[in-house]
Amino acid sequence: MDGNAFQHKLKVVQAGGRPMVCTPLIGQTKEELLHELEVLAEKRPDVIEWRADFFTNLHDKEQVLETLHWLKDKAQGIPILFTIRSEKEGGEAISLSAEEKVTLLETICATQLVEAIDYELMHDVTYMQKVSQAAKKNGVTLIVSYHDFDSTPEITRLEQIFANAESVGADIAKIAVMPHSYEDALKLLFATNNAKNQLKVPLISMAMGEYGTFTRMIGGLFGSVMTFAVGKESSAPGQVAIQELNTVLSVVFSKNE
Amino acid sequence: MDGNAFQHKLKVVQAGGRPMVCTPLIGQTKEELLHELEVLAEKRPDVIEWRADFFTNLHDKEQVLETLHWLKDKAQGIPILFTIRSEKEGGEAISLSAEEKVTLLETICATQLVEAIDYELMHDVTYMQKVSQAAKKNGVTLIVSYHDFDSTPEITRLEQIFANAESVGADIAKIAVMPHSYEDALKLLFATNNAKNQLKVPLISMAMGEYGTFTRMIGGLFGSVMTFAVGKESSAPGQVAIQELNTVLSVVFSKNE
Repeated sequence: MDGNAFQHKLKVVQAGGRPMVCTPLIGQTKEELLHELEVLAEKRPDVIEWRADFFTNLHDKEQVLETLHWLKDKAQGIPILFTIRSEKEGGEAISLSAEEKVTLLETICATQLVEAIDYELMHDVTYMQKVSQAAKKNGVTLIVSYHDFDSTPEITRLEQIFANAESVGADIAKIAVMPHSYEDALKLLFATNNAKNQLKVPLISMAMGEYGTFTRMIGGLFGSVMTFAVGKESSAPGQVAIQELNTVLSVVFSKNE
Repeated sequence: MDGNAFQHKLKVVQAGGRPMVCTPLIGQTKEELLHELEVLAEKRPDVIEWRADFFTNLHDKEQVLETLHWLKDKAQGIPILFTIRSEKEGGEAISLSAEEKVTLLETICATQLVEAIDYELMHDVTYMQKVSQAAKKNGVTLIVSYHDFDSTPEITRLEQIFANAESVGADIAKIAVMPHSYEDALKLLFATNNAKNQLKVPLISMAMGEYGTFTRMIGGLFGSVMTFAVGKESSAPGQVAIQELNTVLSVVFSKNE
């Protein structure tokens, strides 16, 4: 799938289709990643996310590019989302500076081997512009993301975050929060639903952990175009196995297929 | 299952277990009902609801009792909920007066062949007291129900309805509403969650129709102890087939089993 085909698929989902299921790759080495991908591709996720913050040699551009080429070769056409999750927002510690991270993202976009990249809203606006330009220039979809691993902001605050992501150039605005009750998880759904009615860009949202697992199943009804499932190993709390998630989505979205 | 076993099961579900799945029988004659029950019992619902307002000879006490005996015999131990849904709240037209309906419910309770009965909150308090007394005396669980087939009342109003049902003697307080958006359906879940934290009795709630179908799958997380599925034929808009509902419940409540 090329960048345009991916963007077309996004529009279909945004118009009320079944959300895409994305599974993460969290291997530390090329060998681990390829093994993970082999197990995972059989389960036919709609998107594969390479969580490159787990990759030990992230500072070695050649190794990153070589690994990406391999992954692309073995991904059987499944779109790839490239993410270096910040440690502040739940990622692994990495050896790159903020500038080096931007440069790497620009390099990744230039290969056009990935359909999408993820970059956090918290970043400096100058960096965001560079990343956004590199993405647009290469037909790569930019997910601008926000994670709160401690709590669930109020509904109006969540709506503001979605709007901010759109205003800095997101092609998709993403929010993940940590609920401490089922009520918190409902707030995330309310906010997503409101943002869907206010913004043009597609959204991704989920409440993590035990209280949020159900939002990974029904978030699509409220405007979330992508949901993250466990492929081989979980990358965030509360993820469900891809097979189980697909089963539930088939029932919840049976009329949308 | 006798009345006590049913009440024990309710407590288990109320404490966080997987909600019970109830499927309706809507046959007009004894023959139709027995055929329906045969198809349905194989699917092992947790509860079978006899929607007696569909029964043509509801005015003939002997036929009602004879049919109930037959159903009990063939129900393979699955608890029976006896409901004469009012036409005002989505039921069929019946030939009984309000007094005759109360008398029939008293008679049904006295047989102790049913585990639960349903009676609407809208009824005169004198009737409610008679029905409540008959239920308590015979160890039958009384569901006091409220249906809005046009819209979704505000959250505080829904909480008040749940509280009213408890105050008139409900063993279970039930609300079904008609949402006109996914947001309406979220309101129903919010209200159920709040009522769960405020009241002692278990609750049943669902949003009907297309926008509410998902509440039939995840309502249990918010305090709804029972969900209604299509057995052979649907009795309300938005019901899901029992097999599909069970599949989803197995994933949503996988940690509660």
